[in-house]
Amino acid sequence: MEGGGARNGSTTGAARTGGSGGDAAGGGGGGSAGNGKPLPPCCVKARAAAPESEAKCHATVVSGWFTEPRSRGGKTSKVQYYNNPMWPGEAHSLKVEKILYQGKSPYQEVLVFESSTYGKVLVLDGIVQLTDKDECAYQEMITHLPLCSIPSPKKVLVIGGGDGGVLREICRHGSVESIDICEIDQLVIDVCKDFFPDLSVGFKDPRVRLHVGDAVEFLRNAPEGTYDAIIVDSSDPIGPAQELVEKPFFDTIARALRPGGVLCNQAESMWLHTHLIQDMLSICRETFKGSVHYAWTSVPTYPSGVIGFLLCAKEGPPVNFLTPANPIEKLEGAMEAGRDIRFYNSEMHRAAFVLPTFARRELEAYCTTIEREQQEETTAEPLKMNIMPNSEILTAS
Amino acid sequence: MEGGGARNGSTTGAARTGGSGGDAAGGGGGGSAGNGKPLPPCCVKARAAAPESEAKCHATVVSGWFTEPRSRGGKTSKVQYYNNPMWPGEAHSLKVEKILYQGKSPYQEVLVFESSTYGKVLVLDGIVQLTDKDECAYQEMITHLPLCSIPSPKKVLVIGGGDGGVLREICRHGSVESIDICEIDQLVIDVCKDFFPDLSVGFKDPRVRLHVGDAVEFLRNAPEGTYDAIIVDSSDPIGPAQELVEKPFFDTIARALRPGGVLCNQAESMWLHTHLIQDMLSICRETFKGSVHYAWTSVPTYPSGVIGFLLCAKEGPPVNFLTPANPIEKLEGAMEAGRDIRFYNSEMHRAAFVLPTFARRELEAYCTTIEREQQEETTAEPLKMNIMPNSEILTAS
Repeated sequence: MEGGGARNGSTTGAARTGGSGGDAAGGGGGGSAGNGKPLPPCCVKARAAAPESEAKCHATVVSGWFTEPRSRGGKTSKVQYYNNPMWPGEAHSLKVEKILYQGKSPYQEVLVFESSTYGKVLVLDGIVQLTDKDECAYQEMITHLPLCSIPSPKKVLVIGGGDGGVLREICRHGSVESIDICEIDQLVIDVCKDFFPDLSVGFKDPRVRLHVGDAVEFLRNAPEGTYDAIIVDSSDPIGPAQELVEKPFFDTIARALRPGGVLCNQAESMWLHTHLIQDMLSICRETFKGSVHYAWTSVPTYPSGVIGFLLCAKEGPPVNFLTPANPIEKLEGAMEAGRDIRFYNSEMHRAAFVLPTFARRELEAYCTTIEREQQEETTAEPLKMNIMPNSEILTAS
Repeated sequence: MEGGGARNGSTTGAARTGGSGGDAAGGGGGGSAGNGKPLPPCCVKARAAAPESEAKCHATVVSGWFTEPRSRGGKTSKVQYYNNPMWPGEAHSLKVEKILYQGKSPYQEVLVFESSTYGKVLVLDGIVQLTDKDECAYQEMITHLPLCSIPSPKKVLVIGGGDGGVLREICRHGSVESIDICEIDQLVIDVCKDFFPDLSVGFKDPRVRLHVGDAVEFLRNAPEGTYDAIIVDSSDPIGPAQELVEKPFFDTIARALRPGGVLCNQAESMWLHTHLIQDMLSICRETFKGSVHYAWTSVPTYPSGVIGFLLCAKEGPPVNFLTPANPIEKLEGAMEAGRDIRFYNSEMHRAAFVLPTFARRELEAYCTTIEREQQEETTAEPLKMNIMPNSEILTAS
């Protein structure tokens, strides 16, 4: 059970057991990918679960590390911090008010605590998955970036996402007729129903069909060309979940999408892993053959404070991810459905594809911008289709 | 010396001694603003300097806290983390390879260490100011957001910024004829010359005039209407540096700017302090009377992974911050001058003003968008002035 945890719900049992088997203690150490290939050192995730054995001896060490700041008198104070290991060399600590839940499923350790400034926190295998304060950024962006890029999405599949947050966001889209979700870990679903009602509310929508099981198997059995959109709310694509960033997995995704259907996959931090993102973009360009893009947004409790998204369109009707074809502001009731929208809007959608110079240099060559080529051919009034109300940002590409 | 540290060099001695005087130990505690008004609890910065007295007893505790992760055998390992307290309730830890410098000026404690994944790190009064890895985001954005918003800036003033990074960025602008910098702490300048040559290189430009002293006094003595742009690379505007976010300080800035001149001030995180940002926007709107905007960007080692910028134009020729009037890509030699540009580009400039829905709700009413009102009056071809090469993002506002 060592190695990277799921970001936001887990996905395949097969993937999770194929991970690294090192035995090093502490905040880093060697590791190997699921295929036995050694990982580059920057990609060896801090071993969140390493103190697990110790946890059995010390009641205060739950999962991950706790730090106890020294007080002036030299004694330790009662203040407790949950130390979220990120990548080797850094960690982010959150002050713990109260441990609310600790348990273990066949797949992972599950911890919920009340933090003093980020609300409730969900931790899987020692890695912070979400907090009340900033979950809006991740859930809204991973959902609306793909769904607002295509007109009238009807059939949607979520892989992972057992907390229900992505479901909550999909439900804002009135055009959606059915939502399949394939989550391997029933415990994540149950715990989130108890402690994160604002997320698990997504499961209450009658359009949702829950499949508890292995995502790879589910995809293999899905009829070809079924989905308008697939959202992979998955493990970090390193170590145990390596399989989820390799070509065979993307092939099964592409098979399950209709022509012109779209995939959105969480895709790590541009500050930490551009080479990994390059690999994912290369594979996806080869697999999906439509436009392939990288987007990012701010999530304070994720490593380096950002998270990336891989957006891919299957060959078919062209998709211009850079400008929402299906803007959320124009969807009836979408802004108010369930909880208010806190993060996403059409301007944030466009801005998410704008990359800092270093990331642009390293990633732009790996993206496919079918929409640009097509627009270049249209010389008459190339901007017309993008004209939006005053004060909005437009893309000319 | 307790309370918030300077973000990126210090500014006024007067401001820094007028801060909080609490005596609480640990990672948080009460505090009061420079004016004696109690701070809201969310604004009491983690007391980075609290373990200072302890530092004299324990050689391993330098400034701020160090955490020593437990190893499997129950003994502490030799791995050392620098624990950067952010705001109450959270901290970010960086693994320390080697302490390179420790010292104390009349104004603050100065620490430089080599981290294992972010390169060299500068710490003032226990707060991380910059790291080799991500300084590009802060330095480039705080400089080019204002300088690329006005045509041909000639006279520029930097307040704080003793590391030299902002100077390095200003020097890319060939139109600039003189650069004044007012930094109170000679030690910061000297230490950065020794350990951060990629930043302090900014001091070598013959256009730079260094003034070591109090910024408020410097501004009072500056001839009225002198500067095209002023960049405040200052302390966090809470506690000791409270004076730097109050009306009298902004009045002296406005006085020193020419009509239509611009200010860029670091302005905290939208995730943590929207009420503080609202206060700053209100004061600036009243003071500068031109357009006033909030922008943000990603900086992994700052609290919540982002930093904000306040952009204000003095009454006079209107300034549209949202679209660079003076795009860096068109400035001869700017991209290559000294070090390559790593973060800023014209698309990032526009995207920096796009706010998540929660921040837009809380801040938009406080911004003045003179450029929008003016463009609304121009009904003929309103988009024309914004048309940029294909693939660039445009603003219609």
